[in-house]
Amino acid sequence: MTTPVKVGIVGLGRWAKVLARAAAKSDKLAIVAGYSRSEDKRAAFEQETGIRAAPDLKTLLADPEIKGVILTVPNEQHLPVAEEVAKAGKHIYTEKPIANTLEDGLRIEALQKQYGVQVIVGHSARLLVGTRMIKRAIDQGDLGRVAFIEANFSNERALELTPQTWRWYRDKAPGGPLSQLAIHQFDALHYLGGEISEVSSMASKLSPVGAEVDDQSMTLMRYADGKIAYVGTCWTSPGVYAIRVFGSKGLMHYELDFSTWDTPGEIHKTSTLYIQRGKDGYGKREDIAIPEGDMFRDELEMFAQTCITGRPCELTAHNGNVAVAVVYAALRSIERKGQYVALSEVMAEAQAKVTASARAVA
Amino acid sequence: MTTPVKVGIVGLGRWAKVLARAAAKSDKLAIVAGYSRSEDKRAAFEQETGIRAAPDLKTLLADPEIKGVILTVPNEQHLPVAEEVAKAGKHIYTEKPIANTLEDGLRIEALQKQYGVQVIVGHSARLLVGTRMIKRAIDQGDLGRVAFIEANFSNERALELTPQTWRWYRDKAPGGPLSQLAIHQFDALHYLGGEISEVSSMASKLSPVGAEVDDQSMTLMRYADGKIAYVGTCWTSPGVYAIRVFGSKGLMHYELDFSTWDTPGEIHKTSTLYIQRGKDGYGKREDIAIPEGDMFRDELEMFAQTCITGRPCELTAHNGNVAVAVVYAALRSIERKGQYVALSEVMAEAQAKVTASARAVA
Repeated sequence: MTTPVKVGIVGLGRWAKVLARAAAKSDKLAIVAGYSRSEDKRAAFEQETGIRAAPDLKTLLADPEIKGVILTVPNEQHLPVAEEVAKAGKHIYTEKPIANTLEDGLRIEALQKQYGVQVIVGHSARLLVGTRMIKRAIDQGDLGRVAFIEANFSNERALELTPQTWRWYRDKAPGGPLSQLAIHQFDALHYLGGEISEVSSMASKLSPVGAEVDDQSMTLMRYADGKIAYVGTCWTSPGVYAIRVFGSKGLMHYELDFSTWDTPGEIHKTSTLYIQRGKDGYGKREDIAIPEGDMFRDELEMFAQTCITGRPCELTAHNGNVAVAVVYAALRSIERKGQYVALSEVMAEAQAKVTASARAVA
Repeated sequence: MTTPVKVGIVGLGRWAKVLARAAAKSDKLAIVAGYSRSEDKRAAFEQETGIRAAPDLKTLLADPEIKGVILTVPNEQHLPVAEEVAKAGKHIYTEKPIANTLEDGLRIEALQKQYGVQVIVGHSARLLVGTRMIKRAIDQGDLGRVAFIEANFSNERALELTPQTWRWYRDKAPGGPLSQLAIHQFDALHYLGGEISEVSSMASKLSPVGAEVDDQSMTLMRYADGKIAYVGTCWTSPGVYAIRVFGSKGLMHYELDFSTWDTPGEIHKTSTLYIQRGKDGYGKREDIAIPEGDMFRDELEMFAQTCITGRPCELTAHNGNVAVAVVYAALRSIERKGQYVALSEVMAEAQAKVTASARAVA
């Protein structure tokens, strides 16, 4: 057995506790220090997890034993905190999305070369056991030629927004459920289907609460190999998380009870995964048992491995930026009344802005 | 008990037999005569159904006892045969789609005023018992504010196309599964959600057989009241027929085994209908029992009623044309690289063409 990799965590809200619980179940890493600007949160975190809180970020980063830092700060702080961490020569794990803007996401990605560290992004949805099983079925050829994928991630959040919640605002939650929920599926479908080439989108605002953001979102995607995909998210309805993959030899459907999301050991108990083969109708669908999993422990162990080897894992900053780019391509498509928007266009423009602003600073 | 309404049937292929079986189960109408240009088909139909075949269309239409005529001829013959029937002063039931082109569909719709007859279109999918139950739930307010609808109708047909089959060709099966399968869902979603205002679409061709038509199709629709909807159809995968309606208080999902389609008495046995209420996750979904139904008998009985009263039923020529207009709006959107296309634009242009060609003839 190897010694667990020591890591720190910055941002000590609800999510930090979920990840601390996941880390406690692993022998591959140990969270040895936490930091938040809020003294109350530091005290509460220390009490709840037994992990010591550092008095300031500098102290945490000065510890040579700490090889990497987990960021669970609000999205708009990912870049400034990641910069501090990278300057200290430590690897970075950041929660999804990598950043609210693609420009900031690309800046975070660039920290890797700049400081010789790795950035990994916690797109945990692709690590769901059912999603992994679909990928294996695709790779083994069980589904034949995959042509078509549908996904949905919905909940009732937009019925409860108030001006006091950050998701009310367009700049913090661009496109509403598009950046808050659909982004998980964009990454999962990128994982399942490969390179995404263009995107078209439609949105609507129907919640009576009056928030700035749209609350209905449907996005179509074309893959580089010609497959097409749909991601829908309704922010005013009971919760759904589903993926359906259509292949010439079989169709697989995965659906889970999102209320178990924070307790990943429970997810498999209420999840459904089935395959429908060949020409037979739905009467012959075969249910597939899903083993227990823990996508939060898995992503943290991937981070631990990266801290040891200094090499990237599949949760790359690039993949994180692809998911954000799909969000912005969808927003642009909505502005252009549905027109397909190439992901490469959105990526190139954001990169040009990043380059120009770096030059202006220099 | 009233005497059954006497009707004729023109076009004696496979579908005529399905409808003859459905009519035999009803005491509201009796198919008393059939006609096909093919002598073989006339003989086979007579033998199989016991319904006498007329030697020509004129003879069938000359029978004053026959109040209406069912058209099960190929789509491109709907207009010329409907014209003959209308001229004879008989009501018309035509299979969906009303016509291959929207112009022909509008010409068929116009026969109503021109000859004082009614045209009804057999969009049977909206008569599926599960779909009716969803509509009732919506109308009763069980789902709260409906914001979002998803539907899929897929099968493996594109893997089997040959140049000898009419679905190989773009002019006969525009958009492939878009006009062959999605059109059923366009009508069902028009029924469930009301007026459709605009449409965006994406398509792809992936089947190795080399047909002219696309075989993957995804269409987004915006309703006049702001709801949005998705209709997907993959023509290279196992069969699926599903509708999911998302409301603020509940979500309903309906899915059936399409292999039972031709034997409607079997459909409810392998169908699924459930409701997921409020915030509760999918673990609390409630299965709803679906009673036996027969959408073919139901549509024929609607036609019988129209033959008696001379008044339209919900399966109007207009609704049939809306479904065709969604197909053409989707095709235009694909040409315009995904742009939203207003249904009113497509309708108005087709109407203008019809008017211009009528003037040219006059």
